[in-house]
Amino acid sequence: MQPGAEPSAAGSAPSPFQPFRHLLIVGVGLMGGSLGLAARQRGLARHITGYSRRLSTAQEALSVGSVDAVSDDLQAALKAADAVYLAAPVAQFPALFQAIETSGNSDLIVFDAGSTKTAVCAAARDVASRGVGGVSPWYFNFVPSHPIAGAERHGPTAANAQLHVGRTVVVCPHEHTCDPALQRVEAFWQAMGAMVSRMPADEHDRVFAAVSHLPHLLAYSYVHALLQTPTGAADMQEGGGGFRDFSRIAASSPEMWVDIFLDNRDQTLAHLDRFMQSADLLRSALKAGDRQTLLSALGQAAAFRGQWRGK
Amino acid sequence: MQPGAEPSAAGSAPSPFQPFRHLLIVGVGLMGGSLGLAARQRGLARHITGYSRRLSTAQEALSVGSVDAVSDDLQAALKAADAVYLAAPVAQFPALFQAIETSGNSDLIVFDAGSTKTAVCAAARDVASRGVGGVSPWYFNFVPSHPIAGAERHGPTAANAQLHVGRTVVVCPHEHTCDPALQRVEAFWQAMGAMVSRMPADEHDRVFAAVSHLPHLLAYSYVHALLQTPTGAADMQEGGGGFRDFSRIAASSPEMWVDIFLDNRDQTLAHLDRFMQSADLLRSALKAGDRQTLLSALGQAAAFRGQWRGK
Repeated sequence: MQPGAEPSAAGSAPSPFQPFRHLLIVGVGLMGGSLGLAARQRGLARHITGYSRRLSTAQEALSVGSVDAVSDDLQAALKAADAVYLAAPVAQFPALFQAIETSGNSDLIVFDAGSTKTAVCAAARDVASRGVGGVSPWYFNFVPSHPIAGAERHGPTAANAQLHVGRTVVVCPHEHTCDPALQRVEAFWQAMGAMVSRMPADEHDRVFAAVSHLPHLLAYSYVHALLQTPTGAADMQEGGGGFRDFSRIAASSPEMWVDIFLDNRDQTLAHLDRFMQSADLLRSALKAGDRQTLLSALGQAAAFRGQWRGK
Repeated sequence: MQPGAEPSAAGSAPSPFQPFRHLLIVGVGLMGGSLGLAARQRGLARHITGYSRRLSTAQEALSVGSVDAVSDDLQAALKAADAVYLAAPVAQFPALFQAIETSGNSDLIVFDAGSTKTAVCAAARDVASRGVGGVSPWYFNFVPSHPIAGAERHGPTAANAQLHVGRTVVVCPHEHTCDPALQRVEAFWQAMGAMVSRMPADEHDRVFAAVSHLPHLLAYSYVHALLQTPTGAADMQEGGGGFRDFSRIAASSPEMWVDIFLDNRDQTLAHLDRFMQSADLLRSALKAGDRQTLLSALGQAAAFRGQWRGK
């Protein structure tokens, strides 16, 4: 490393990005569709093909302009591409890695939108290690990524060309990720208007269990409890801005979030247990009418939350 | 009631509002200050005095223009006013009701910003019933109100003239609230740009335990748990839009929320227990790797939340 150079690309000036020749997007919902829309507008790929397990979904993406063409032949599409973005539910990733392995396209750059990274990396390594003669070449070009961007809407029509602008993309290179592929994917994200933050996969999963996966689990639990009460549906309509913001993420895609919870089960459960301890502390204090304990806990939390520097 | 008339004022055309002659605002933070700012801009009071336990706080309100004058003599201010808005922490309400009782101003219209209503009504009734010869006159002019508006900022400088515009104000007339006072306060809220929704105090407390008090308790618990971990402060900075919205209300005023939780303890604890049942259901399913139960519970919650019609 040169003097003054940073280990992370975060904060460095965006590198000029040489467009992908042929970008394949697998999964053309909110994440894949938004990436396609922005890449087309910004000229970051000369041709973009969309693939979905259901051809009709890919055709919806074509109609909203997030891809140039659709394919119903994943093998052919993988052979023709120089880069593939995996934005399908993470439960499909093992099969997708197998398809990449089978395609034999050893120059293919592979990156993804998976919200968990340890399980995704392990799935890729499993598939890439099965052949004879060591690890398959595509694995060296696999750059695990996680755009910290989302919305409660999903599906091809939720695509939004601005989704990644100003947002962080966490990039988690694994032990064999090669520098050229890493630099190319990071430059792509920067050309999308995103900021790149590098961290190891296990650190990613611990951090996002705390600040994303647990909040989703709690928001789902909260709304699930509300709908159990006979007056829940009417009560909900009285909710104001606090209700709106607190429960917003409970409208997120259930399929996607079940995968995330299961993939990052241990970390999510560990943070859930810590939450339960704090909730029990507040519950006991409330039951006992212990104003001082409540005031102290709430005061600490409010001061801590006040230090968040995000947007 | 005339044919076709509604029991609630909600949805009816705003009544023309004859300005208050002299409005006293007790507590000039976010809620009181915003009301003062808007009432001055809209000409809804010919003169507005601000009172706070600390004179310096009232002077801050004066400097941001949410009141015309300040007073350090609550008794004198109560005698001079034709209306008083109680926007101090609800723990101070019993003492404020006593001050109103002592002032002997029997024409005074009394309304408030308290986020709980059963305890506030009981405190008013207690004070008003102490004298000889039945209930004190001011109690008939007491119109319990709860503006469903807030922000995580607080204090006089957080005042915002638009805070109530388009928001609901729940009005909970008690058994002795007289019609002229009720109509005058409801017309005032409508002239502020708010929508009025009438409901009994106990229903209010049940509904808002579900859609406001519990979310606040959970958000505080979540942030409290996060700050217990050694990496919590760094982890928090990686949070995105989900974190921002889910935890926003944990930055709300601790003093105010401790009062609310204690005043509405039983309802809040009942909803917390229901939440715990749902959280336990999800935790057990996650531990067991039970995708089907998770998918079902998350699917129900997401569909339910999708039916919220608020803004």
